[in-house]
Amino acid sequence: SDVKKIAVIAGDGIGPEVVGEALKVLKKTEELFGYQFETEHGLFGGIAIDEKGTPLPQETLELCKGADAVLLGAVGGPKWDNNSKELRPETGLLGIRKELGLFSNIRPATVFDCLKEASTLKPEVLEGTDLIVVRELTGGIYFGEKFRREGANGEEAVDTCVYNVKEVERIVRQAFDIAMTRGKRLASVDKANVLETSRLWREVVNRIAPEYPEVELEHVLVDNCAMQLLRRPSSFDVIVTENMFGDILSDEAAMLTGSIGMLSSASLGEGSFGLYEPVHGSAPDIAGQGISNPIATILSVALMFRLTFGYHEAAAAIEAAVKEVLDAGHRTGDIAVDKSKAIGTTEMGDLIVAAL
Amino acid sequence: SDVKKIAVIAGDGIGPEVVGEALKVLKKTEELFGYQFETEHGLFGGIAIDEKGTPLPQETLELCKGADAVLLGAVGGPKWDNNSKELRPETGLLGIRKELGLFSNIRPATVFDCLKEASTLKPEVLEGTDLIVVRELTGGIYFGEKFRREGANGEEAVDTCVYNVKEVERIVRQAFDIAMTRGKRLASVDKANVLETSRLWREVVNRIAPEYPEVELEHVLVDNCAMQLLRRPSSFDVIVTENMFGDILSDEAAMLTGSIGMLSSASLGEGSFGLYEPVHGSAPDIAGQGISNPIATILSVALMFRLTFGYHEAAAAIEAAVKEVLDAGHRTGDIAVDKSKAIGTTEMGDLIVAAL
Ligand SMILES: CC(C)[C@H](C(=O)O)[C@@H](O)C(=O)O
Ligand SMILES: CC(C)[C@H](C(=O)O)[C@@H](O)C(=O)O
Repeated sequence: SDVKKIAVIAGDGIGPEVVGEALKVLKKTEELFGYQFETEHGLFGGIAIDEKGTPLPQETLELCKGADAVLLGAVGGPKWDNNSKELRPETGLLGIRKELGLFSNIRPATVFDCLKEASTLKPEVLEGTDLIVVRELTGGIYFGEKFRREGANGEEAVDTCVYNVKEVERIVRQAFDIAMTRGKRLASVDKANVLETSRLWREVVNRIAPEYPEVELEHVLVDNCAMQLLRRPSSFDVIVTENMFGDILSDEAAMLTGSIGMLSSASLGEGSFGLYEPVHGSAPDIAGQGISNPIATILSVALMFRLTFGYHEAAAAIEAAVKEVLDAGHRTGDIAVDKSKAIGTTEMGDLIVAAL
Repeated sequence: SDVKKIAVIAGDGIGPEVVGEALKVLKKTEELFGYQFETEHGLFGGIAIDEKGTPLPQETLELCKGADAVLLGAVGGPKWDNNSKELRPETGLLGIRKELGLFSNIRPATVFDCLKEASTLKPEVLEGTDLIVVRELTGGIYFGEKFRREGANGEEAVDTCVYNVKEVERIVRQAFDIAMTRGKRLASVDKANVLETSRLWREVVNRIAPEYPEVELEHVLVDNCAMQLLRRPSSFDVIVTENMFGDILSDEAAMLTGSIGMLSSASLGEGSFGLYEPVHGSAPDIAGQGISNPIATILSVALMFRLTFGYHEAAAAIEAAVKEVLDAGHRTGDIAVDKSKAIGTTEMGDLIVAAL
């Protein structure tokens, strides 16, 4: 049918507030473009721990599996930080990625012209920066065996980093595909001078590269990449890397844009299914005050339209509406130069809906 | 005796050039301060592969073991990049760290006032930045078991990350000790929400913390640290972390100072023994042209004086001489604004010797 099912997981902290505004935008696109969405809410993260005794209840997982896409707010907060592993929001996050087969995390690091000044980088260095980090999301040291044992020097802890050829192939192909739709440059990041998983990674990349003769490929060591992102951010187009390196580098890349409150992300599996969420976290310090910035979540809806539903026109309309509102000078507190003129979460959402 | 033995490992690329200038400075301090140094050269890295068939010849290892300190230039280059693991310069580097028990890598990220403009960060963000990354250097995923195996999804590669309590204790104590001599703030970086080794790390840090009641401790997740280094570099004093995270974060921190050609590092074990080297690499593209910047290596001698020999007066004299030469406007190509006025490696070395 043409009714698209969206599982909505508001989560913790500012999650419910920002998701609320994104849902208004979603609703407005039904009117404007004749789409039909069926949204159903699920408990996840800290709130699910409180209400169901587990961060990822089975019914939430079923809800997501039955949906075409998932819209996620944010999870976590100090309340659950000292819980045992099984009762932590992050465990739910890792669980949902694995259970839904979301092997690819797409993190655009876009510089919003009107927020350029918010970056700690010099404007001339930032000029032209527009990159995407493609992070492998269900393998590596995140999911390998972990344990404690007694050794000769007291207790020891072990984490295992594992990658197989198939896991590397699918994420690398996807990164090449994305590069083909953009600047046709791909930086594959590894630590092949030290790690066996990185050597496998690089072998696979080199084996796949000839399938994409138009894409200019470079291999960058992870330590060097952390430097080059600072030195020449605008020279990157698509960066592909494994789970742990991607966690670090995608956050570094996001921060250098100065637009962290504005960035959306997609986690994708096979096919068109995807989970969409803002890059910023649950911001427990400002939760419930109605001052959080809903733009990243609204832009996550646009990303969902593009990547899962193929609703390109509506996606462009949402992005244009956001730009219009920003260009008119409206700012939430996190991106306001003059904090006294900052508007609230709901106002920002309403303005974007009105601009649509 | 009062004769200090220094093993000199010039290495590859620009290594020999920059070490040559550092040795001139060393010699000058003998005259000025009455020190006595016995220097002996050893082969290491690419050149050792070429001449001895191994990146770390046994005699070089013996030379280092018999010395009070090691001065290292740089190793590596494209010539050896496609060699098998045993015949790569990096393998020698990992070997020497392990064999000499150099469990701690000290990487000061200092902003040189006269080079502030070279940073891609805004000057007002950089203002007051003066931090040290203390990186664990002989454990973690660098040294755990690595292998390939056949799995259900084709070939797979495995790396193992292991830390025991003793390994964490010694590096964390050292970081606390360093913090006590400086700003009394310590950021311990881990990924305790995902990794078992990080949970062990954090437990040990929390157990040791009460021994240093004056030190203000914060735990920072590695992805967040990659962001905070960009957002508020001047708020960090000492950062302590495990091997892989330290590799990435110390390079990020170095790059944000804009002074990468000027930064020195120390790798320390138990006792006063240490290996000193510039942070920049072997720069094969400019090797042999006499245009490389010897300052990082000269400052590595100053660091050796401080940390291994306790020659604080001479260390300060070297640092002052470097500052004087820079303040007088002399620059090598890498740090020159007007490249046409850049001076060469030897000239820079001579000027610093003269300023001593
Ligand atoms: C919360 C944490 C487990 C998670 C990760 O490391 O993947 C987060 O940092 C992210 O990037 O989504
Ligand atoms: C060359 C490489 C093995 C080494 C490391 O990763 O430790 C280097 O990057 C460093 O930081 O000294």
